[in-house]
Order: sequence, then C-alpha cells, then structure tokens
Amino acid sequence: MQIDLNCDMGESFGTYELGYDAQAMPFVTSINVACGFHASDPDNMAKTVALAKQHGVAVGAHPGYPDLVGFGRRSMALTPEEVKNTVIYQIGALESFCRTAGIKMQHVKVHGALYNNAEKDLTIATAIAEAIKAVDPSLYMLCLANSQMGVAARNAGLPYVEEAFADRAYTDEGSLVSRKIAGSVIHDLELVVARVVQMVRDKTVTSIIGNVVPINAQTICVHGDTPGAVAMVKAIRAALEKEKITLKAFGC
Amino acid sequence: MQIDLNCDMGESFGTYELGYDAQAMPFVTSINVACGFHASDPDNMAKTVALAKQHGVAVGAHPGYPDLVGFGRRSMALTPEEVKNTVIYQIGALESFCRTAGIKMQHVKVHGALYNNAEKDLTIATAIAEAIKAVDPSLYMLCLANSQMGVAARNAGLPYVEEAFADRAYTDEGSLVSRKIAGSVIHDLELVVARVVQMVRDKTVTSIIGNVVPINAQTICVHGDTPGAVAMVKAIRAALEKEKITLKAFGC
Amino acid sequence: MQIDLNCDMGESFGTYELGYDAQAMPFVTSINVACGFHASDPDNMAKTVALAKQHGVAVGAHPGYPDLVGFGRRSMALTPEEVKNTVIYQIGALESFCRTAGIKMQHVKVHGALYNNAEKDLTIATAIAEAIKAVDPSLYMLCLANSQMGVAARNAGLPYVEEAFADRAYTDEGSLVSRKIAGSVIHDLELVVARVVQMVRDKTVTSIIGNVVPINAQTICVHGDTPGAVAMVKAIRAALEKEKITLKAFGC
Amino acid sequence: MQIDLNCDMGESFGTYELGYDAQAMPFVTSINVACGFHASDPDNMAKTVALAKQHGVAVGAHPGYPDLVGFGRRSMALTPEEVKNTVIYQIGALESFCRTAGIKMQHVKVHGALYNNAEKDLTIATAIAEAIKAVDPSLYMLCLANSQMGVAARNAGLPYVEEAFADRAYTDEGSLVSRKIAGSVIHDLELVVARVVQMVRDKTVTSIIGNVVPINAQTICVHGDTPGAVAMVKAIRAALEKEKITLKAFGC
Repeated sequence: MQIDLNCDMGESFGTYELGYDAQAMPFVTSINVACGFHASDPDNMAKTVALAKQHGVAVGAHPGYPDLVGFGRRSMALTPEEVKNTVIYQIGALESFCRTAGIKMQHVKVHGALYNNAEKDLTIATAIAEAIKAVDPSLYMLCLANSQMGVAARNAGLPYVEEAFADRAYTDEGSLVSRKIAGSVIHDLELVVARVVQMVRDKTVTSIIGNVVPINAQTICVHGDTPGAVAMVKAIRAALEKEKITLKAFGC
Repeated sequence: MQIDLNCDMGESFGTYELGYDAQAMPFVTSINVACGFHASDPDNMAKTVALAKQHGVAVGAHPGYPDLVGFGRRSMALTPEEVKNTVIYQIGALESFCRTAGIKMQHVKVHGALYNNAEKDLTIATAIAEAIKAVDPSLYMLCLANSQMGVAARNAGLPYVEEAFADRAYTDEGSLVSRKIAGSVIHDLELVVARVVQMVRDKTVTSIIGNVVPINAQTICVHGDTPGAVAMVKAIRAALEKEKITLKAFGC
Repeated sequence: MQIDLNCDMGESFGTYELGYDAQAMPFVTSINVACGFHASDPDNMAKTVALAKQHGVAVGAHPGYPDLVGFGRRSMALTPEEVKNTVIYQIGALESFCRTAGIKMQHVKVHGALYNNAEKDLTIATAIAEAIKAVDPSLYMLCLANSQMGVAARNAGLPYVEEAFADRAYTDEGSLVSRKIAGSVIHDLELVVARVVQMVRDKTVTSIIGNVVPINAQTICVHGDTPGAVAMVKAIRAALEKEKITLKAFGC
Repeated sequence: MQIDLNCDMGESFGTYELGYDAQAMPFVTSINVACGFHASDPDNMAKTVALAKQHGVAVGAHPGYPDLVGFGRRSMALTPEEVKNTVIYQIGALESFCRTAGIKMQHVKVHGALYNNAEKDLTIATAIAEAIKAVDPSLYMLCLANSQMGVAARNAGLPYVEEAFADRAYTDEGSLVSRKIAGSVIHDLELVVARVVQMVRDKTVTSIIGNVVPINAQTICVHGDTPGAVAMVKAIRAALEKEKITLKAFGC
C-alpha cells in the first residue's frame, strides 16, 4: 500500500516570501510549483526545484490564471484556447528549470480559480488535458477525485491521478463541501490525521453528515503555508508510516 | 556557400499587433520569437511557432528583460543569476510551444537591452550562455559578431553562430556603429542588398569610413516590422539566390 | 438641442500603437482614456490628455480590469471592494495627468468586461459609483442607457449621463442586442449616421425587429480604432451639425 | 525643537504581506506609501491610508520603477520623460486614496533604485521635482540630505525636506556610506537611538571615521519591516520625547 503527499510550493514572489517550503519539503513526496502567472518568478522557481531535487521530491507544474495581484484565485473568462496556451507556456517555463536541475517533471496540477473551474467544466478541463498532452504525454494530470478533470484526462489518454484533501469535509457523493459552508475546512490536527489514514487505508471518508463513503485517491493534498500546516504534514506522514503505508511519489 | 536570414517575430501582445510576420516569414530561414517578458503572450507564441513550422522556418527563443511597457529596450540592473534564470524561464516557455508543434528549437538570441548589455559585458553574456547550456547544450547561441557573446559561448562549449546586420554601418574594427551616430542605419534598399551580398560572398563589409574590412557571419539579421522592411527581406533573398548562395537555417 | 460624442482613446501601450486618436480627436467632444490596467501607460496617458486639451475635448477616465494581455475584455471575479479600489486607483492616475495639463476631469466610464458586468449587476455598478463619489462627487458617471449603472449613479447621488451606441442594434426594450447575434453591429455608414440623427433629434431608435422605440441619451459612443471608424465619426458629426444640433461635452 | 519620523509602508502586494505597518504606525509621523509599481495594490493602498488617518500620520507617495519582481530595487534606464510620467501617475493613484479618506497628501519620496539614481543624477532628480510640481506644487519633495534631490527641489521652487537615516553610517562629507562597505548599516539599537538624538538635537553626526560633522535633517528615516525595526522606532521615539523634542509631521 502506498500514497503520495502533494503540496503547493514555490509561491514566493520577488522579495515576498510565502510558505514554509524548506520546513515542509522533507515530509512530502510531490510538489506543485507556481510558474510565474499567479505567483513565483524565475529565481524562486530555480530555488524551489533545487530544494525538491535535494530531498528527492517529485516536481509538477502548478499553472494558474495570469493574475499576480489576485494570486490566481479570481476566475477569469479565458477561452479554452487561451487556457490551453497559458498552460502550455507555464509547463514549459517550469520544465526548463527541471531540465536544468537534471530531473524529469512528473505532473501538472492547475491552481486556484483555474482548478475550481476545471473541476466542474469539462471544456476547461479538456483544454488543460490537451495542453499537457501536447507538451509531453507522459506527464500525469493531477485531478480532483470525481471531477471533470479525470474525465478530461481519460478522454485525452493522459496518465492521471486523483487527489483527496487532508483537511476538507466531503459530501455523501464524495465531493468537497464548499468552503462557504461551516465545517468545510477541518483544523483539528488529530482528526485530520485520522481521516487521512482512513482515506488511504480503507479508501473511505466520513462525510459531513456522518456517512462512510468510498473515496479513491492516489495522492493527498497537504499544505505548507503556515507553521501549523507544516506540523500537520509531519503528523500525517508519521501516522501513515506507522500504518506501514509507503510514502512515494505517484510517478516513480 | 550558404547563409541564414534571421528575423525577430512574434512581437505582438494581446490585442496589439506588431510586425508583418505573415508577409516576412516566407523569405527568412530562422526567427527569434519573443517569450512574454518584453513582448508576446502564450496565444501569440503558439500562432508564431505554427506559422514558422508551416514555412519550414527554424525557431529560436528571443528572451528579454521583464519590461513589457519598455519593450525590453531599457537596461535593467539584473544580477547575473537573475539574468540566467530569466533566460532559462523564457527558453522553456517557447520550447513548450515548439514541442507542441513537433519541431526542435534551434537557437537562443537575446533581445534589446539585454543583447546590448551582453555584447559588451562578459558576465552577462556568460549568464546567458550558461542558461542556454543548462536547458539544452545542443541549442545554438546567436551572437553579435566580434562581441563578448561569442566569447561566452566558446567558454561554455556551446554551439554558436555570429550575425551581421543587413542595414547597419560598421566600424573599421568590424563593430556596429552606434545608433546615435548619423549614418548608422542604412535605409537605401539597393545599398543594403549589395552590402549583404558582399558580407556573405566576400566575407567583407565596407566600413563607415570606406575601408573594406573582414566580417564573418553565419546569419544576417533582417527586419519584418514595417512594409518597407519586408520588401528589403525579399530583395535580399532574391539577390542572394541570384548569387547561387543557399538560404538555409544554420542549425539544419 | 445638443449632444456629446464620446470615444475611447489612449489605448496604445508602450511601443504598441492602437487607434487613430489624432485623426478622430477633432470630431469628438469627450474621450475615455485608458488608465494602465487594461491598456495605456503613463507616457501615453500624458500624450492623450495633452492632445485632448489642444482640441478642447473633455476627458474622462476609462478604468478596466487588471488584464493587459486580455485588454480588459475578459471578466474577472473581483469582489465589490476590489472593484471599488481598482477604480479609485485608476481615476487618480488619470486625474494626475489632467491636473498636470491644467484641465478638470469630466467623467468616468468603465471599460470592457467591467462595463458589461456593471450593466447587469447592481453590486458592481454600485462599487463603481461609490468609487467615483469617493474621489470626486462632481465627476459624471457615464452609463449605458437603461442599465444598472444609471440606477447605481442615482442611488449614489452622482451626476451621470446615459449613452447610446452609434453602430449597435437595439431591442424593443431599448437594450443592446448581444454581439453574438447577427446584425448586432451595424457597419453601413449611411445607416449609422441616420440612426444617430434619429436618436438625438427624435429620441427614438428603430429596433432590430423594426419598431420605433424611445431612447434617451446625452452622449453617443463612437469609435476611432480603424480608419473606417474615423470616417464614420466625421460623417456623424457633419450630419448632426447639418441638423443644427450642437456638439458639446455634457459636462461643460 | 521638532522632528518628523518617516517610514516606508503599504509594501504588501495582493496575498503577500510585508512589513509591520500596524505595529510601527503609532510611533511614526509620516509614511511613504508604495503605489503599485514596485509594491502594493489598490486594496492595500486603501487600507494603508485608512490606517494612517486613524493614527493621525501624514501620508506621502512612494513611487518606484515599474518592477514588481525586483521590488523597484533594480535600476532601469528610463528617460527623464518616462520618469516624470511614471511619477505623475503614481502620485495620482495614491492621491485618489487620500482624497477618498479625506486627507491631504503631504509629500513624495521616491523609492529604491529611483531614489539612488535621483540622489546622484540631477536630470532624474529634476524629472521627479517637475512631476511633483506639475501635479501639486504644495507637495513636499522628501530628499536625501546633501543630494541632487534638494538641488532639483530648489530649482523647481518646490517645498522640500531633507532626511537622515537612523541606522546608516555617514562619511565626513555628510553622505551615506555605501551599503557595500562593512559598518554602513548600524544594527545596535542603543547606538542608533543615541545617533538620532545627536542628529536632531545637535544637528551633527559622528562619521564612520570618528569625526563629528554637521547634518541638517527635518525628517529621520526609520524602518518597520521587521519586529526589530519596530522596536527601534519605539526606542527612537521614546528617546526623542525624553529630550523634549516634538514629534510632528513636517507638513503640518
């Protein structure tokens, strides 16, 4: 039994520092690196890829909308063609740093509002899948479980994995509970750890109304943007290792 | 006897159109494509690479300073490390569109103020050469003849070519006459054509004070940003073909 | 009887030129100047305001979404607070050039996707009205006739004018026919001129299905972004003058 | 006897937080607010001006080069005309938030590499002074003591003040010791406090080689970007109050 822990990193920008990349890196197995459109810059991308290599962590591109001031969290009405080219551009930018570091890029996971849109809109998800395939059909598409992303990846014939969120509540249908609803984000460390173990070991999750529902994820999304988040990653990793679950990047 | 004609293209940005790419493309053999920092955007890069492929024209990256409003023509005090990462980023971004189009990128030629700085400053030229080598050591570095760029490329062990300018005056030392000096840019079409033929066939150029001096270039830089420039490219090509000189991308 | 002709200007950006500002300026009475977020830059704003002053044309700010590559034409999910501050910022930036030129800014008209959103969404229209009022309650808000913009301006107690479009088809309800529908944009010069005269003199417009419906506009939106558009502005002005209608900025 | 303490604030950008504005605000008398070119954004500018108003702190614009990723610290080869328009734009943007908050802007202090260039280059300093005067000739220009900035302000007939740095070493000529030289930045809190008291009370500073030299500053530049910097501001203020020196914005 094995699982991947993926984490957004490289989100600093110029003089602005964001996240605890150095602290969280030893505990995750894959990272999603911002590519300069919603966050990051060339120097920071170089630094982040070098840090990942040093820790043997797999690297993916994390493309977002071209909206630095909004951190890619504001939906933008791009055409599918614009989404496709925007993603192709950002994959290439990061890929260049991977090549420079002598590592192979593992995957692509889109960011923020682009992720939220792709989750529900097959046209957008398809534009993303086509972008990935066009650049390198061996790249994994990292998809939200049970979303249109997985459909798009399958249609494109792309390798893909599905992710579950360590700290988010789920509906009976196995979808994420909207962040606007109270209880959608779980802050209790022990509860989060227990839920992750259940997701990985039992392939189930307890829904927000108390039912045990199936979930099938090859990677768990964790956060490294606060000291508390780093502590949570450590605890998740320790609990999984105690269960003899192998922590390993999905593409290795 | 063969020569390459290189031309900056893909310099449009969003709704803003610049240059006569479609008109000039049939007459050149290599293009330098802007990568989104001083000009261009993902959609325009995709379109430009597709057009080059259609015409069998070789593609290179044309990285510049991160200064859209200044079109990369204003010097910026970047550290060598910043130059290196900025170039790595931009090569990758364009490379992604080349891969998508199923072509191999041929070269890298830096743009504007970055070109002017690299011409004279070995530290900057070296940062550029190292960036290219780090991404792909088979990429050619396109250098101004007799400049620090060629030194940097040689030091790095990179393949490189040197360029001469179709419409620029030269000193007795084989350097470009500064644009600030009257007569530095030659507008007379017939004179430009005759000079290019001389540069390629005889490997000499007549300096601004009338001496015939040696010049050795594997590629001639031409322009496609005005209707007059396109006419000049056509005339240069016709004259070279009349001399039985093969027009061919240097990396093919 | 009097009318204002308003036109978007100052949409060039850095080295990129857009529009025929110098050609159209003598024929309009008010201009909407891009403020650097979707188009324009400080040098171009200075130049545009100076040109307007020279021709005695009234100046307004034309704020848009922060999306240069998309020219402000792509909707962005900004909060009302973000819209408000984005508009305050852009008004101030342009106002500074008006002050420098010794003229008083007349109005604010939002651009592109922000205009389209404000037309239908009172929350966004209200954020815009509040921004204008906060900076200078004597500034006119330029609103689409019969839209939420006018409601917002009235609620805020702002002076406002409503505009009709010279070259657009109207529904029986006096709204614009969507650009997605065939016939929504009228290209025939004579027809456009006749429609403008009817709008101004008779305060009616013939709808897309042939009914004469009332329309009440204090300003007519014209275009200056193509040579054909400039010819249209000239013809509209000549026809209005022939009808003894005074062409005059609404705020004078 | 009175003095002003000025501090750079509002340097956050989007989701990125920088500086301890809320902690330092109660102890300073004037702030320099970033205007969106090297740092800050409309929402952050609104927030910063509101905070200053709440504490009765005077507000100035802090314009910089258009270089977000470089935080305005990298010199850019702008023409004097470009500098002028860039400064006019940024003053207006901030002024709009001052007006919205119902306060009058007090001054303009340029940032980073633009400050460093203006210090030595009268052409650049003059472009800045002309920009300020063009927008509002009652705005103070905040100048480095004994620099070209003061010359430019005098030539333009602008009100101006000169600043000394709390934590920087000085030469015998009363200039700043370059940051490249060891000892140029003084980190010892007690020493910094004593130096500020000497600068204000005695109008002298002890140079890096031990001589007491005259210095005449109407404002002292302090920092608020680290917890240690905030502690230093508090200690400086306490020491000045103990000496019965009035802390007061220069323009009040």
